[in-house]
Amino acid sequence: MSAAITLFDEQGYEETTIAQIAAAAGLTKRTFFRYFADKREVLFNGSDELIEDWIAAVAAAAPEASPMTAACAGLDPVAEMFVERHAFARIRARIIAANPELQERELIKLQSLAAAIKVELMNRGVSENAAILAAQSAVTVFHVAFARWVQQDDPTAFRQLMDESLDELRSVTTA
Amino acid sequence: MSAAITLFDEQGYEETTIAQIAAAAGLTKRTFFRYFADKREVLFNGSDELIEDWIAAVAAAAPEASPMTAACAGLDPVAEMFVERHAFARIRARIIAANPELQERELIKLQSLAAAIKVELMNRGVSENAAILAAQSAVTVFHVAFARWVQQDDPTAFRQLMDESLDELRSVTTA
Repeated sequence: MSAAITLFDEQGYEETTIAQIAAAAGLTKRTFFRYFADKREVLFNGSDELIEDWIAAVAAAAPEASPMTAACAGLDPVAEMFVERHAFARIRARIIAANPELQERELIKLQSLAAAIKVELMNRGVSENAAILAAQSAVTVFHVAFARWVQQDDPTAFRQLMDESLDELRSVTTA
Repeated sequence: MSAAITLFDEQGYEETTIAQIAAAAGLTKRTFFRYFADKREVLFNGSDELIEDWIAAVAAAAPEASPMTAACAGLDPVAEMFVERHAFARIRARIIAANPELQERELIKLQSLAAAIKVELMNRGVSENAAILAAQSAVTVFHVAFARWVQQDDPTAFRQLMDESLDELRSVTTA
């Protein structure tokens, strides 16, 4: 992933071949394909882990937590998981912003996350409507905070940006 | 569109050919392609009009309207536009629910709507963060109300369902 992101950053995503990535990482192409189905997967490889960590946190939220509090429980482990990925995330965000097909893929991954949170909230006894609304809102908070986090220099600022984004969502929706 | 949706409903979306749609509508295939680039476009043809009507309403909202009120101004014309499309929308919703590729297309259209609302809010002087949060929230309200509307029998219920969905969003995000 590190070799790939460096090449994407230096010479462009479209221009980088799997052979180049494998060579830079000291791997054969065959070994590359043991880890990633294609070049795009290098950029989206972390999203399954993100969803798993987020859902585990929703499941572990206190039984009396509100739907929104439970939905947002995933923000803690995710902020922590991302601290060491700041440099990667910044380059990745630039690549995705420049490529409509990757933007679509990113939106779909975010919607997969929202769908998974919704299901987990319903497992907790939340009604379907409230589950969708809380899940979508939590993902929007994450998405807005993420966009701000990759634009600034402090890798540890993510949790704070999430709190600000959540506060702002609450004030925007009730105004 | 009417001929196509009837065929999709009777024999399945995948199984329906453009030749069959054209024949049922009394058109040649060539004429079909003057209106739609492909079969999928029959299902997504209304989304540009939806976005245009929604954005015009945001632009026309009172200058003192809050970002959320302005973002939600599009709900009125859209609810009205959909009244006469209830039968179409119900069949369409079933087809999309059964086809992951169409679900992705639907999510991307909803995100295009959110992006357009965001831009229009920023044109009104709303900050980027507040614009994203209000736009995403308004689209979520629409999406939830739409899913409920196609599940029930009254074509005129959409506006009421939107209000309920907006109230529920406000109570969910602040709980």
